[in-house]
Amino acid sequence: MESKKKTNIILFSGDYDKAMAAYIIANGAAAYDHEVTIFHTFWGLNALRKDEPIKVKKNFMEMLFGKMMPRGANKMGLSKMNFAGFGPKMIKEIMKKHNAMPLPELIEMAKEQEINLVACQMTVDLLGLKHEEIMDGVEYAGVAAYLGGAEDGNVNLFI
Amino acid sequence: MESKKKTNIILFSGDYDKAMAAYIIANGAAAYDHEVTIFHTFWGLNALRKDEPIKVKKNFMEMLFGKMMPRGANKMGLSKMNFAGFGPKMIKEIMKKHNAMPLPELIEMAKEQEINLVACQMTVDLLGLKHEEIMDGVEYAGVAAYLGGAEDGNVNLFI
Amino acid sequence: MESKKKTNIILFSGDYDKAMAAYIIANGAAAYDHEVTIFHTFWGLNALRKDEPIKVKKNFMEMLFGKMMPRGANKMGLSKMNFAGFGPKMIKEIMKKHNAMPLPELIEMAKEQEINLVACQMTVDLLGLKHEEIMDGVEYAGVAAYLGGAEDGNVNLFI
Repeated sequence: MESKKKTNIILFSGDYDKAMAAYIIANGAAAYDHEVTIFHTFWGLNALRKDEPIKVKKNFMEMLFGKMMPRGANKMGLSKMNFAGFGPKMIKEIMKKHNAMPLPELIEMAKEQEINLVACQMTVDLLGLKHEEIMDGVEYAGVAAYLGGAEDGNVNLFI
Repeated sequence: MESKKKTNIILFSGDYDKAMAAYIIANGAAAYDHEVTIFHTFWGLNALRKDEPIKVKKNFMEMLFGKMMPRGANKMGLSKMNFAGFGPKMIKEIMKKHNAMPLPELIEMAKEQEINLVACQMTVDLLGLKHEEIMDGVEYAGVAAYLGGAEDGNVNLFI
Repeated sequence: MESKKKTNIILFSGDYDKAMAAYIIANGAAAYDHEVTIFHTFWGLNALRKDEPIKVKKNFMEMLFGKMMPRGANKMGLSKMNFAGFGPKMIKEIMKKHNAMPLPELIEMAKEQEINLVACQMTVDLLGLKHEEIMDGVEYAGVAAYLGGAEDGNVNLFI
């Protein structure tokens, strides 16, 4: 009987607006009783970073990357009209007026709906991120795990 | 007997080249007798804007966004080598030589082929767009409608 | 019996990191015995360019585009934190330490695994590329060929 529909999203982008799109689709699919996975890779990993600085040992390169990348969903920029951070402020202001959920809440909702939040271990290593810096409840996996889920997925997207 | 194949494209991007790719695939799929939907969200909505300014009531933020975003497909920029608008001019020049259809014609063709052009109502609101500014024949819907179509789609893409 | 699973990736992006993601997924899928196609279009074509300059006849526009676009996978930039070419250097340095395969090797591996590398003829023409400039073993096709493969694909992605 295991006939649950499946949605598999690769979140590659580190942009606030694209991550929002990913999480809105994911939460929608979970509400429609899909089994949903978001596989975060490259810049998309930043959506899973804790927002406070965490004490971890890093080499010079890792420290550099760590400093330059946004610490968590709320600090991500827009893919268009970012205007050095002014764009995201505008969008968040407008979202509040329209009662649209900001990205950190969309991520919380995803957890509550038991969406599988996966981080690509290979790119975690490349970007010098440590597990302590990434929010709890995230699984670590690779392309094999992604394909295992996606090959009988109904909705597969790369965002 | 309802065994028509389905193609569902989310057009998130506001870039001329990406929108062209979306509409070329969509028109191709329609020619192969797929049931095709393009779900426009975020910057992708600009492809559906009328190119002349329309008198509508807007608050300050909405006016600002409205002014900054391209008014219609023909005014969109390139994702690469845009060079402050020179890139699109070059590409259009070259397309003319190769008899490739420019984006506004691809959109016209999509309408003639009865491709479903859908605008995401949530992001229409966020970007402060009004229905009067958007071309006729567009439907307004949300993530539920998208998923309803995509979950038994053959070709699902996020562009 | 022809029940091989299928992965079809459109590589539109000309970014090193996105192309890497495409080729990692493709190689993974091939290892899992999928029939895999990467359909290169627009800026994604640059991944297939030979890295040495090739003597070909071009008009002015074609020459201009040819000069401005990266000559081969190794010269592509990053979608984020490119810093005028410093970002790719950093990433490649880190990849070496982690024994991660650089993009040109991922492309070699794809050939060895008999992944179908397809170049979109229409965009080859638009960007003024000549077949002599593109690596051997690449097929040339259009949207019809793409759809023929993708409409019964298991994993379809637009990158």
